Amino acid sequence: MDFQTPAWVHEAVFYQIFPDRFASSPAVEKPGNLEAWEAAPTPYGFKGGDLLGIVEHLDYLQDLGITAIYLNPIFQSASNHRYHTHDYFRVDPLLGGDAAFRRLLDEAHRRGMRIILDGVFNHASRGFFQFHHILEVGAQSPYLDWFVIKGFPLNAYEGTPNYKCWWNLPALPEFNHANPQVQRFIFDVARYWLEQGIDGWRLDVPFCVTEPGFWARFREVVKAANPEAYITGEIPEAADPWLQGDQFDGVMNYLLTYACWGFFGGEHLRRDLVGHWYQHGPEFFVNDAAGFAEKITHLLERYPRPAVLAQLNLLDSHDTARFLSLVGGERARLRLAVLFLMTYPGAPCVYYGDEIGLEGGQDPDCRRAFPWDERRWDQDLRAWYRTCIGLRRAHPALRTGTFTVLHAQGDVLIYARQSGADAAVIILNRSSQTLHLDVEVGAGLPEASRWRDALGAGTAQVTQ
Amino acid sequence: MDFQTPAWVHEAVFYQIFPDRFASSPAVEKPGNLEAWEAAPTPYGFKGGDLLGIVEHLDYLQDLGITAIYLNPIFQSASNHRYHTHDYFRVDPLLGGDAAFRRLLDEAHRRGMRIILDGVFNHASRGFFQFHHILEVGAQSPYLDWFVIKGFPLNAYEGTPNYKCWWNLPALPEFNHANPQVQRFIFDVARYWLEQGIDGWRLDVPFCVTEPGFWARFREVVKAANPEAYITGEIPEAADPWLQGDQFDGVMNYLLTYACWGFFGGEHLRRDLVGHWYQHGPEFFVNDAAGFAEKITHLLERYPRPAVLAQLNLLDSHDTARFLSLVGGERARLRLAVLFLMTYPGAPCVYYGDEIGLEGGQDPDCRRAFPWDERRWDQDLRAWYRTCIGLRRAHPALRTGTFTVLHAQGDVLIYARQSGADAAVIILNRSSQTLHLDVEVGAGLPEASRWRDALGAGTAQVTQ
Repeated sequence: MDFQTPAWVHEAVFYQIFPDRFASSPAVEKPGNLEAWEAAPTPYGFKGGDLLGIVEHLDYLQDLGITAIYLNPIFQSASNHRYHTHDYFRVDPLLGGDAAFRRLLDEAHRRGMRIILDGVFNHASRGFFQFHHILEVGAQSPYLDWFVIKGFPLNAYEGTPNYKCWWNLPALPEFNHANPQVQRFIFDVARYWLEQGIDGWRLDVPFCVTEPGFWARFREVVKAANPEAYITGEIPEAADPWLQGDQFDGVMNYLLTYACWGFFGGEHLRRDLVGHWYQHGPEFFVNDAAGFAEKITHLLERYPRPAVLAQLNLLDSHDTARFLSLVGGERARLRLAVLFLMTYPGAPCVYYGDEIGLEGGQDPDCRRAFPWDERRWDQDLRAWYRTCIGLRRAHPALRTGTFTVLHAQGDVLIYARQSGADAAVIILNRSSQTLHLDVEVGAGLPEASRWRDALGAGTAQVTQ
Repeated sequence: MDFQTPAWVHEAVFYQIFPDRFASSPAVEKPGNLEAWEAAPTPYGFKGGDLLGIVEHLDYLQDLGITAIYLNPIFQSASNHRYHTHDYFRVDPLLGGDAAFRRLLDEAHRRGMRIILDGVFNHASRGFFQFHHILEVGAQSPYLDWFVIKGFPLNAYEGTPNYKCWWNLPALPEFNHANPQVQRFIFDVARYWLEQGIDGWRLDVPFCVTEPGFWARFREVVKAANPEAYITGEIPEAADPWLQGDQFDGVMNYLLTYACWGFFGGEHLRRDLVGHWYQHGPEFFVNDAAGFAEKITHLLERYPRPAVLAQLNLLDSHDTARFLSLVGGERARLRLAVLFLMTYPGAPCVYYGDEIGLEGGQDPDCRRAFPWDERRWDQDLRAWYRTCIGLRRAHPALRTGTFTVLHAQGDVLIYARQSGADAAVIILNRSSQTLHLDVEVGAGLPEASRWRDALGAGTAQVTQ
């Protein structure tokens, strides 16, 4: 199989936005009853972020070095996270509707930025038309086969759900993917938004869709609509089945995330904030450089190279506590992790607000509103993000070069990246001590070559 | 006030279609689980009629003489009658969706036929996004003010509804029309579909919307979008408040309907099938020509002339038993009523299938599927409809002429219509006896003028 992943993804730096919480534009009228922007998030409250708010801050993102945006769901939905889709063909009116999204797409593309959307195709919501149809009409609904119904009347709002639903949550009825009409519907959605100009799909819980061939057909539809479209899946564990070339380009590389939490968090890691994620890959929660090196090397070898370069590498997301909080507020650990992320193969993804030091525990606390009052920003941290992103964007070696661990022991990890004449050695020292080490650099780094300290003023020279 | 109603309505012959039941096109794929087309209708079942089915039978309607179609609701809805609107901006996918409606509009307009839609603006449905939002999100929904909520959690599917809903039916939450955003939403819907090309709105239960000025503003929006758009309201009683020039052009003239049921039904009238309609206007259920003449004259005088010419005059509808059934299956009574309807001021409206002798009791029986097997048609009856409609279309006197009762006694009603040189005398004899009468014709019908029997071969002459 000819496995190709979009070249632009290999070069991209993503920024993940939870639309209700990033920025609110006065140009989008809101109905009312919103939570205060600065108040702690609640499970059901809305703060009124919208897509024109993002448009108004594209300068900010460009200044940071961002080249692509991953948007959490934006379709019409009766939830602040919008994973409960009411209408797959309509952008939520609270976000400014279709017109605001058109504006965002155009403005982003004008700047050369890409946008991928969150595709929630395992389940819909109780208000989704075809499910609502069954709920209202009962056994005589023509849409009976769109879901897996086990009895009537539906226990949608009372009692135990008598239909297939995600995690047995009645709010999230699961599609019957065996129904060809359902498949066609989902493919139509995927195609429609690609035709509108989106640059790819991030797929929600795709491992829950077990219909044989479904994601392979999905890929065919997507790539037929736009061969450069990116498909990445939310896979919290090993992703081999989806990364063989016939399904996804990459995944949200959570195994890498766990390794970062383990190594960079070290003794500071707040296991209470890690929560259920631990059980998805306990062996990835390594606590020393040797173990970390083994894991991150393994992840480069485990998957086909095209997938490796198209992985979405993240330190945290809307589904985890924020990295800074996970590492007990240790900014130095976050800085180290950011440097790692920006110098490792695969597309790094910054969760909105991480770059200014936004903290947050588990959902919903990790979804705080972005504080636009700059006095509340950690400007040094933001500068660090900008610097690390800038390095990645300046150096092909950091994006698509080889990856060679030179040293991995205790608190220190050293690795080299190289692409043609472009080469870098990354030295990560987790401890607060200055260390003096002799490191075998190998054949790739010629003797007597001089090296510039990309983060400081010094130079170095390879010696025998 | 300058009260103008659309001239095309004065000239129109409407045909009311219940979309699930008129015609089903193989070009519209259906999900499945449909009732057999010929089986008796059930409250919740779908038969799969669609809008391309209507397109395919526009020849049939034109042959009958129809110039305008009133469509029962076509927007996305989880009910076979589609009065429970899920999405006001989308045509129901079971009907073929927006594309099928586009096709229907274009094909109808190409033939010079008009189309008006059913606007259900008093209430929405439990699946309508903004209500569903409150149902899912609860007290933190930004849409709280779109409906009138009296407590949480909402008793939408269990218990006693704790929100304002039509007839206390939980499936039909009533809009809070006092909310300016709700008003704007409804006006946007009205404008949007006019911009798509519809020729007017039939308004569902508009008397339930008591927000001061609402319908006057609605009229402004509609007439601004298309000054020739028709606005007619479902008003089962006296309609004076809405017909003063600032709100509707006409109403569904149910008071006339009751008079027709009373007079033409006479001793055959099935009061059991009349049901609750009786109480809306018991005094209109007259049983002799004198009483009937008084009522139909009264209805011409009661309302401003522009409204009279724009009334939607009907013998029955999707909300009543069919006329033929109401009069005990007496075809002669239906024929007489049709002749009356086609020779009375105001736009006649034929309920689909009446013209081929379709019978039906109260809802849902009055919503049977149209039998396209011509062997099941009453061809004589259909010819009669065609003839009476043809007369109306050929003679301006029958549409917009003066109306003068010449004789009204017992079983016999005689009236004259006149417009310039065009004049007609209509003689209705409800009995099965041939009668010989001397009738004073008055100044409008000159002595010695000769008259052609429009329905037969004879002639007549006015004598002293």
